[in-house]
This record gives sequence, C-alpha cells and structure tokens, in this order.
Amino acid sequence: MEKHMRRWRIEQFGKQNLRLETVPVPTPGRGEILVRVAAVALNYRDKMNIDNGSGGAQVAPPFTPASDMAGEVVALGEDARRFAVGARVMSTFWGGWLDGEWPSHAVALGAPGPGMLSEYVLLPEDWAVAAPAALSDAQASTLPCAGVTAWSALVEHGRLHAGQTVVLQGTGGVSLFGLQLAAAHGAQAIVISGDDAKLERAQALGAAHLINRRRTPRWDEAVREMTGGRGADHVLEMVGGDNFRLSLQALRQGGRVSVIGLLGDAEIHASSVPLFLGRPTIQGIGVGHRRALEELARAAGHAGLAPVIEREYGFGDLPQAIDHLERGPFGKLVLRLDR
Amino acid sequence: MEKHMRRWRIEQFGKQNLRLETVPVPTPGRGEILVRVAAVALNYRDKMNIDNGSGGAQVAPPFTPASDMAGEVVALGEDARRFAVGARVMSTFWGGWLDGEWPSHAVALGAPGPGMLSEYVLLPEDWAVAAPAALSDAQASTLPCAGVTAWSALVEHGRLHAGQTVVLQGTGGVSLFGLQLAAAHGAQAIVISGDDAKLERAQALGAAHLINRRRTPRWDEAVREMTGGRGADHVLEMVGGDNFRLSLQALRQGGRVSVIGLLGDAEIHASSVPLFLGRPTIQGIGVGHRRALEELARAAGHAGLAPVIEREYGFGDLPQAIDHLERGPFGKLVLRLDR
Amino acid sequence: MEKHMRRWRIEQFGKQNLRLETVPVPTPGRGEILVRVAAVALNYRDKMNIDNGSGGAQVAPPFTPASDMAGEVVALGEDARRFAVGARVMSTFWGGWLDGEWPSHAVALGAPGPGMLSEYVLLPEDWAVAAPAALSDAQASTLPCAGVTAWSALVEHGRLHAGQTVVLQGTGGVSLFGLQLAAAHGAQAIVISGDDAKLERAQALGAAHLINRRRTPRWDEAVREMTGGRGADHVLEMVGGDNFRLSLQALRQGGRVSVIGLLGDAEIHASSVPLFLGRPTIQGIGVGHRRALEELARAAGHAGLAPVIEREYGFGDLPQAIDHLERGPFGKLVLRLDR
Amino acid sequence: MEKHMRRWRIEQFGKQNLRLETVPVPTPGRGEILVRVAAVALNYRDKMNIDNGSGGAQVAPPFTPASDMAGEVVALGEDARRFAVGARVMSTFWGGWLDGEWPSHAVALGAPGPGMLSEYVLLPEDWAVAAPAALSDAQASTLPCAGVTAWSALVEHGRLHAGQTVVLQGTGGVSLFGLQLAAAHGAQAIVISGDDAKLERAQALGAAHLINRRRTPRWDEAVREMTGGRGADHVLEMVGGDNFRLSLQALRQGGRVSVIGLLGDAEIHASSVPLFLGRPTIQGIGVGHRRALEELARAAGHAGLAPVIEREYGFGDLPQAIDHLERGPFGKLVLRLDR
Repeated sequence: MEKHMRRWRIEQFGKQNLRLETVPVPTPGRGEILVRVAAVALNYRDKMNIDNGSGGAQVAPPFTPASDMAGEVVALGEDARRFAVGARVMSTFWGGWLDGEWPSHAVALGAPGPGMLSEYVLLPEDWAVAAPAALSDAQASTLPCAGVTAWSALVEHGRLHAGQTVVLQGTGGVSLFGLQLAAAHGAQAIVISGDDAKLERAQALGAAHLINRRRTPRWDEAVREMTGGRGADHVLEMVGGDNFRLSLQALRQGGRVSVIGLLGDAEIHASSVPLFLGRPTIQGIGVGHRRALEELARAAGHAGLAPVIEREYGFGDLPQAIDHLERGPFGKLVLRLDR
Repeated sequence: MEKHMRRWRIEQFGKQNLRLETVPVPTPGRGEILVRVAAVALNYRDKMNIDNGSGGAQVAPPFTPASDMAGEVVALGEDARRFAVGARVMSTFWGGWLDGEWPSHAVALGAPGPGMLSEYVLLPEDWAVAAPAALSDAQASTLPCAGVTAWSALVEHGRLHAGQTVVLQGTGGVSLFGLQLAAAHGAQAIVISGDDAKLERAQALGAAHLINRRRTPRWDEAVREMTGGRGADHVLEMVGGDNFRLSLQALRQGGRVSVIGLLGDAEIHASSVPLFLGRPTIQGIGVGHRRALEELARAAGHAGLAPVIEREYGFGDLPQAIDHLERGPFGKLVLRLDR
Repeated sequence: MEKHMRRWRIEQFGKQNLRLETVPVPTPGRGEILVRVAAVALNYRDKMNIDNGSGGAQVAPPFTPASDMAGEVVALGEDARRFAVGARVMSTFWGGWLDGEWPSHAVALGAPGPGMLSEYVLLPEDWAVAAPAALSDAQASTLPCAGVTAWSALVEHGRLHAGQTVVLQGTGGVSLFGLQLAAAHGAQAIVISGDDAKLERAQALGAAHLINRRRTPRWDEAVREMTGGRGADHVLEMVGGDNFRLSLQALRQGGRVSVIGLLGDAEIHASSVPLFLGRPTIQGIGVGHRRALEELARAAGHAGLAPVIEREYGFGDLPQAIDHLERGPFGKLVLRLDR
Repeated sequence: MEKHMRRWRIEQFGKQNLRLETVPVPTPGRGEILVRVAAVALNYRDKMNIDNGSGGAQVAPPFTPASDMAGEVVALGEDARRFAVGARVMSTFWGGWLDGEWPSHAVALGAPGPGMLSEYVLLPEDWAVAAPAALSDAQASTLPCAGVTAWSALVEHGRLHAGQTVVLQGTGGVSLFGLQLAAAHGAQAIVISGDDAKLERAQALGAAHLINRRRTPRWDEAVREMTGGRGADHVLEMVGGDNFRLSLQALRQGGRVSVIGLLGDAEIHASSVPLFLGRPTIQGIGVGHRRALEELARAAGHAGLAPVIEREYGFGDLPQAIDHLERGPFGKLVLRLDR
C-alpha cells in the first residue's frame, strides 16, 4: 500500500480555496476500516458547504468535502469484523444513524464528519455498507445521499406501491432516483422541468408524463388532469417557496409531499384550506439511515436500477465538476479515483 | 310523537337571518333513523358557515346549521337495523366516512349535509354512533367534531403514548380534548394561552405546564426548556401564519404538527431548515371517520373522560350562544333541547 | 333488455345438485345497479361452499355460487350515482367492506351474499368497482378475491418493496398474483411446487427461484440459501399444518407470514423458539376491502399486470370447471357469459 | 474505588454450581463505562440459562447470569461521552440494538453477553440508558427486560390507546407491566390467574376484570362477555400450546396477540378458521430496542408507573431468589447490592 495519499482540502470557504494536498495514509484504529476510494459522487450540498457552510449544521473549515463514495476495504483496525479486506463498500451519509429515529450523535460526512474526496478514507466500520455487485463503483457512489433521500421519501416513509403516481420536480440526482424507484415499483412518474431536452431524457428513463413548467406554470392542474382528476400520491418537493402551494394542490386526498430541496426558496408557504380539505402528510426528509441504504442496495441489485450519471470526472477535476454542479446536471456527477 | 317540530334555519348568510321555523316531523325512509335531538354542540365552523359559508365547501343557504348532536332514536325506516328505538346516538361529523381514507361522497353535516339544530333529525343509520352510557347527552354531543379532531390528530395519526409531550394552543374545544386525551394516555400537556385565568383552569384539568403567550411570545423556547431540550412530540396547530414556525421549532426530532385551526391566518409559513434538520411530520386534519368516533366513545367510557362544557343554552338561545362562541369559550358550548 | 335470465342454483349441498334455472331479470331498487355479467372467476372457496358450505360462515342452500365477476352496468336504481349505464364493473368480494377495518355487517358474495353465476346480477352500487380498461372481462373477473387477497397480504399489510423476497406456495390464483405483484414491485419471487412443468411456467412469469418440494422437502433451507442466509421477507402460507413451521423458519428477522390458504390442514403448528428469536409478524388474511380492489385495478393498468387464466369455460360448463378446480389449475378458471 | 469485587459465576449448568467469586474491578476501555451495580432484577430466562442454557442462543458456561441492572457510573473509558460519572443508568437487555430492526450483531446480556450479577460491570456506553429519577434503583432495574417486553408488545408494535382492552395471562413481571401500561393509557386490563389472592392484588393495581382460569377454563368466552361480545384488542400470550387457541378466540376482529411466554408449552397450535375470519396479527416479541427502554423510562416518570417488586433480596441470597422465581412471584424479584 502507498504511504501517502492526495486529498482535497479547504482552509476557508470559497471554491477558489480548494487545494489538493498530500498527507500520510492513516492507520485504522479500533473498529475502523481503511478504504481505498474508487469513486466520489457530488451533491449540491457539497457546493453549499464549500461556498459558505450552508449545507448543514456546524460546517467550518478546514475540511475535506463530500459524503458519498464507493471503494475497497484495504485494512482493518482491531475488532473490525463487518467487512473483510477486499470488500467493496459505500459510505453512509450519516455516520452513526443505523436505523429507526435519527440520533443526536449522528454526524454528516463531508463536514463536520470526514470528507470522502481523498484517495483513502478511515471510517468506523458501522459507517459503511456493502456495495451491490450489480453496480459499478461510480454508480454505487451515488446511493448514499441522493439515492437514500428518494428511498426514504418514497419507500421508507411513503410506502410507494404499484399504481401510484409520483411527481418529480427537475431532473437532479434525487428526482431521477425518484423516477427510477417509481418505475421499479410499478408506479407512474410525472416529471416537471423547464428544459425539453431533459424531459425527453426523463421519458427514456420511464417517465409516464412530462410537464414543461415554462409552458405550463400551473403544473398542479396538469397533474390533476393526467391522473383523471384524482391527484398525485407523492410529490418530491425540491423547490420551496410558492411552489409548495402547487405541490399541495397537485395531491390526491391524503397524499404526501416530501420536503427535500434546498434549490429554491428557504421558506415554504401554503394556504390552510388544502390542509383541512385534502388531509395531506408533509414529511421533512434529511437523507436517511443505514438500513435504508442497505435496502436500496438490495433493490438496485434485484430490480436492475442503474443510477444516472451525467458525467464522470478525474480526481483532479473537482473545480470543473463543481462548475457543472452549479449548472444543474441531469442526474449525478462522479469523480473517479481508479488508477 | 309530535307531528311538528321547530328547527333553526338560515335563508341568507348573517346571524341576524337565523329563524326558528316550525315544520312537520319527517318520516324515516329506507335505511334511515329519526332522532329526537337532546343536545347540540356548536363549533367555530358553524359560526363561519352562518356568517359567509366559509366553514367548508359548498355551503349555501338555505340550511340548518350544526353538525354535532346527541339524542334518542324514535323511529326506524325500512331495513334500518343498526339501532333499536330508544337507543342513544350521536351524529358523525362526516356523513358517509366510515373508516380508512376520506371518500369523495362524504358530506359534512350542518351544511351542505343536514343540520342538527332541529328538534328531530333524519339520518341514514350509518351516520350515527351509539352514545357512551357514561356521558350525558350534552357531553356526548361534543364528541363528533371537536373530540374526533383531537383523537384523529393524536391517536389515529399520532400514536400518542405515555411519556410523550403534547402542546396545545388555546383552550377551545379541540385543545381541551387534546389536553384530556394526553392525560388519559399518560402524556404531559403543555397549554399556551393569553389568559391566566384560562391557564389555571387548564391546570386543574391536568396540564403539566402552562405558557402565557403574552409574557412568553417565544413559547417554542419555553417548550424546549420544559422538555429538557428535547422538544415536544405533538403540537396541535390552531393558529397558522407565523405561529406555524414556532410549532415546528418546538418539536423534537421526528415530531408531529397536526394542522387543525382556522382561528388565525389562512396561510402557513415555515422556513425549510427545520424541515430538513428536524424531519417533522405535518399532518392536515379534517375531523375524522366514524371508527374514530366509536373509539373515542369507548375511550370516554373506560378512561373517564368528561368533555368540558363551559355553558349550556336553551334551544331558543342560539344567537346568545353564537355571541359566546365569538368571544372564545373555554371548551364547548351546548344547546339543550330536553323538555 | 331480456326479460328472463339463466342462473346457477343449488338447493342442497353437492355439485351434482347444481341446476341452471331461468328466472325473471330483476329490477334495481334504490341505490342498486343491474349488471349484465360477462365473466365469472371461480375460487376454491366456491367448491367448498358447493360441497358442504365450508367456504365461509352461514352458507346454506339455496344459493347461487361465486363471488367474482366482471360485467356491464345496464340499469340503475333510484339514487344510484357511482356508475353510468354502460360502465364496466367488477364485484367486491365483501359486500359492504369499503375501507379500514372489516365491519361485522359485511357479507361475502356467492353465499350468504348474492351469487355471481347469473346472466344478470343486482348489487348495491357500493359493492362494485370500475374494471380497468387494460384488462379483458375475464381478466378483470379474477381480481376481487384472488387478486385482492395477494394485494392485502403483500401491499396493504406487507408494504412490499423493491429488493425484497417473496415465497409463494403452489401455483394457484393467489400465488400467481403474489408472483406478479412481487415482479411489479421490483421484488424477487421464489415459487414452491411439486410439479416441474408448473415451475417452468412460473419462471416464465418472472419467478427468480424455483423449488420442487418433492425433491427439496426442507424448502425453508433452500430459501435461506437463495437469500444469502438472510431469509425471505414475505411468505404467503397456503397449506397450514406443519408446513407453517417451515414458513416461519424461511423468514428473515422480523419477516411476515400471511396466512391465507385453506388447501391443506385446518390447523397450524409452530414452535415458540422462532417466534422469540425471529420476531415475525403472522397476519391472518380474509380477502380485503374495496379500496384494495381499487388500488389493485389501478396497479393492473399502470404496471401491466395480466392475470393468469388457465382456461375459460362457457356459462353452461360449470361442472367441468369445478372438476378442473379440484385438480388444481395453474392460476385462474373463468366462465364467460358473453354472447 | 475498591480494587476487588464479588460476582456470581457458573462454571457448569445447574443452580447448585453458582459461586460467588472475587475478582479485580475491571478498567473501562475505549467507549466503555464502569457501573457500580445497585440492583439486579431476575427474569425467568435467567433460571433457564442457569439450569441448562435454554433461555437463549449460544448460552454456555462459564458465565455471570442476569441482564437487568440499575447502578451508578463510576468511571469512563476514553471517548465515552454519553454519561457523566455519577449518572444513574440501567443496562439494555440487548447490547447493540439501538432502534429499528434487530441487528444480528446484538448480544443478550447475562449470557452470552456480560452478566449483571456483579458488584461492578463494564458496558459499552451505548448499552445503557439513564434511569428515571422517579424510580428507585430496584424499580429501575426491572425495566430492561420485563418492562421493555410489555412496552414493545403493547406500545411499539401494538399502538395501545384509551378504550382498548388488554388480556394478561398470569401475574409475572411482564403481565403486571402490561396491566400498568394498560391503566396508564386509559385501557382496561383483564387479568387471568389460577390464584384468587393474586387476582385480588391485580385488582388493586387497576385491573378492570378478573378471571380465575381454574373456575373458568374457557376464559376466551369470559373475555368476549366482558367486552360486550366484541373481543379483546390485545392478548399477551405467556403460555403457548393450546392456550394459544383461546388467545385467538378471545380477540376482536383485527386484534393482536403478542407471543412472549416461555412458561408453558414450546409449541403453539391454532385452528386456521379464526385466522381467516378474525384477521388477527400475531407478533413474536423478543424484548426490544434501546429506544423502547428510553420511552418506557420517560413514561414511568410522567405517568407515575411504579414497577411491582414482590421481594428484594441481598446480593448473597441469589439461590433463595431463584427458588422464589421457580414458585412464580407476583411481579418482579430484585437483588440489592447497596452498601
């Protein structure tokens, strides 16, 4: 094994301050695993953390960004028994949230927890899950945050089933996982975007209906029409602000809005009336627990779910990848570290 | 049985237009029961309907107001088998919502469905539930709307259990049922009011903590303190507007806000951050189904739950009772028709 | 419309006592619909009822057998508003169970409720559901009992999702619906049968694994192996007796056995140890409510679920169809009444 | 702190082989806490383990028995942060089951995990929960196994609420917790015992109905009568064998049997018919997770739940306490180590 490794580091906020530094490869302590990272998936939250720490609580430099990786276990600390050397693993977004309710000791990877943009990472063995054999490293690296967020919203909380309708706002990573999960569960997906080219690609992934929000700003009415007047069972709310009103109005009686997105407004607004008359459930989603990642990994294997990666970058191309992230990719962006 | 009966009727909106009229006692058709009304409980919604029809969908004069009554079955239509003549019954708020999800054919009593402010009422037999022997007619009449609303929020959706904390805003009918249900389930209630005298009465009913919102406008922080920093498990949101932000901030991780009230703003506002970090469930409540009323009736019997009635009026005193309703009673107001 | 119709009738138990009789076409009363039956699906329960009434409670001759039909609404009684004349509908297995918990007034069709083996049937409008446009009449007629039973077990109670494993015992109607629902939800199905030819057909329908119970009597161990030691998430128990022990032993920690079948022993036996160590949920299933049928109908449309019909018979061929039923068909048997 | 401590140890099965030995007080390693034990509650499982290891999986001498203790944290290992020195804590029955589904790495205390019959015990900090201030050490020591078992069955899985009926078989620790939880949630408890004196004591604790099973062997019919024909919502099954048939027959439609007991037969038997007609849920219970213990602790504080301890013994009196355990105490037996 090498003695030294490269990792991305930021000493103060601002993407111009990202530096590739070379440091010794660490040694796993008790209960820890050392992972040689093969692929790191970026999330919009990483950009927010790099810009000003707004992607989560208690984010302050210096830190190594990114929460989501796939790689190979190369060394074990004392008492580490969950994985053998050579195992392919993914990180969990939340270190220490295994199942059930979110515990206050859980820590988000990529700041304030350890960042994955590093050739090797140390993790407590409980913070990793076996990667599905059916997925490449790049694909597996997209599951921990975007994949688990869609899974928590639709499956863990939402009890998604065949015959339901799911509304997806935009074509980022979470929305496309939502689309693929809908298709895998026999549900129909309605995708909203302002870009016809992206809508076409969503259709190729199995979307049943498409709405261009520029031509159809009252997309809630379009959803109601597409569902024979009934309304949607699930909406993944990615925008906030007044868009939230439309999300509520697009729902069937007793439907569910999962509030996920940080992309638009930092506020949500709603009128009370659809809350009494429509009896919706509005569920805040903050990624999810390790069991959700394990279930998603199993589902990806059985149901042939192939995560959508718009482009893969080299490890050194982080700045370009972040520029791409700002432009809004179709699906995920991944940095590959394979050599 | 009498041949004629009196009932309250409104030909155009405005409480000055309420008239007591005398009409023939109707005859039950197939599957219907005729009930001699003993007590009618008023809800704030009744006032809104009388004022301008804003208490629900499709409310237009002429109509007889009020949804909640207790009385005695005095005649049965053909094939009506659920009750015997002489049985004590309550109306269900929603005619035709028996269990599970709200069906679109369900109709709210008191407009557009039949109104209970009448000496006799006809109901399909499915729209009534046996009144608990342990409660007086006046008490039983308060269960269908205010009681079921609190039950749906806390028990049916909320899975209330011992050791939890419930925050109640104000001391109206729903809030006091919430307080009594909390006490009956071994949970602690925190009551917020702007009136110290009402807070004292809430304490006598079993409230564990009291907050005067005039002296403590940041009641969310007070709730957090009273729960050792943990936050509340349940908040019954009765106000809306910016109060909703405080409701979210008063919650524990994964806690629940039930949105019930029409008393304040017709909008709700929230910042997105507590939705990601706190993972709350926000549940719109629109009263509830017949099974909820049956379960509440059983609970009232077993757990010794005595609904709080601030004052009983005579049948002819409806205008005075509505004036009282506008002033905000502590608990419920009931009109008694016993003779 | 014709004035007279034919219907099957039994005056005393025993299939030799089945008679085709001609009676007047009835007229719908208040809230009823008259349906011209196009297809009737048979269930094993129908045979039990014909033999000795053992297919349910309070079954006594004379009666017209069968609970499951698809057909066309040809006349409406007063106040019947759910369907227009010309609508394609299916019967609900339980008359009067709309949603939520089973109500004691619900009545099973085909005895003691009205039987569907008739050219025309009268039903309260609440006892019917729109047939999915994507299914033929014969296919739609198989949903009310066998389809809803599998749906209730796996979706309504079982929260089936992608990546799970479902064990199916035999290849009767319920098992094949279970197999198709598993596939439609991204789950893998393991089918057990004593007949290799049937196993091959199950594979063609999407079964991931096959077990011939004659060659592998300890099928529980085979299931454990096929799931990497983890065990199955769901077992549909169709046999009873000591087979139930194997069902429990085939389960993952916290898995679910749905007890459905009447085919084998009338008793179930289990050892206590897997109940403490494995924490299973054992759920008795008695078909399901109308909402389940509505959801299944929607799923069949969206997810392209085509019920498996082994053979269609003419209306007059009931005795032959019952003989076939006794031999154990692969999927469903349907009588077609189209002319 | 003392340098040496006494602990009970067994080198081969059989209670005659229990020895009090003196060993050095251990030092907490990384993430561990050292607890000075104040009280240890015995469970029937401890007796089974001592007799022949039948109280769980992989129980083999040598071991120190008992899973349930309350005591004081006296030293912290490196990185142990959940508790301060001086904190009062209880052990969790399952080491490593924090929330959600039971993980396969979880280990039962008292064999094969560490035993609590010791003056000091070392525990990973995650295996302990703060003891409620309202309970004595002896009372707190009864929560981890018997208390959590009843809580898991009735609250976590069973969603117990006011107005329900709970049937309790016998008057051991779990049954009396069930009785007290029923009372704390506004539900009515029916207690079955063969001993009138114990029934009287159960009544004093709040039981609504009592059944002497010697005089009323068909206790299922008595339960049905006491519930107006409806049946019970919950039965805690403590006996097994043919008693299980009665448990099913005592249930309401859609009711719940929690299978807990090891006291009677190691088999359960049931007829299939009530499983189809009654749609019960049968849930295997294997104690529960740490969150359940935390919630129970909170409930004990708020709802004034005082665990029933029939007798307290000194640390040296273990043999006598086990003799008492074999005779079947009313509630719990506790050894106190306070000096």
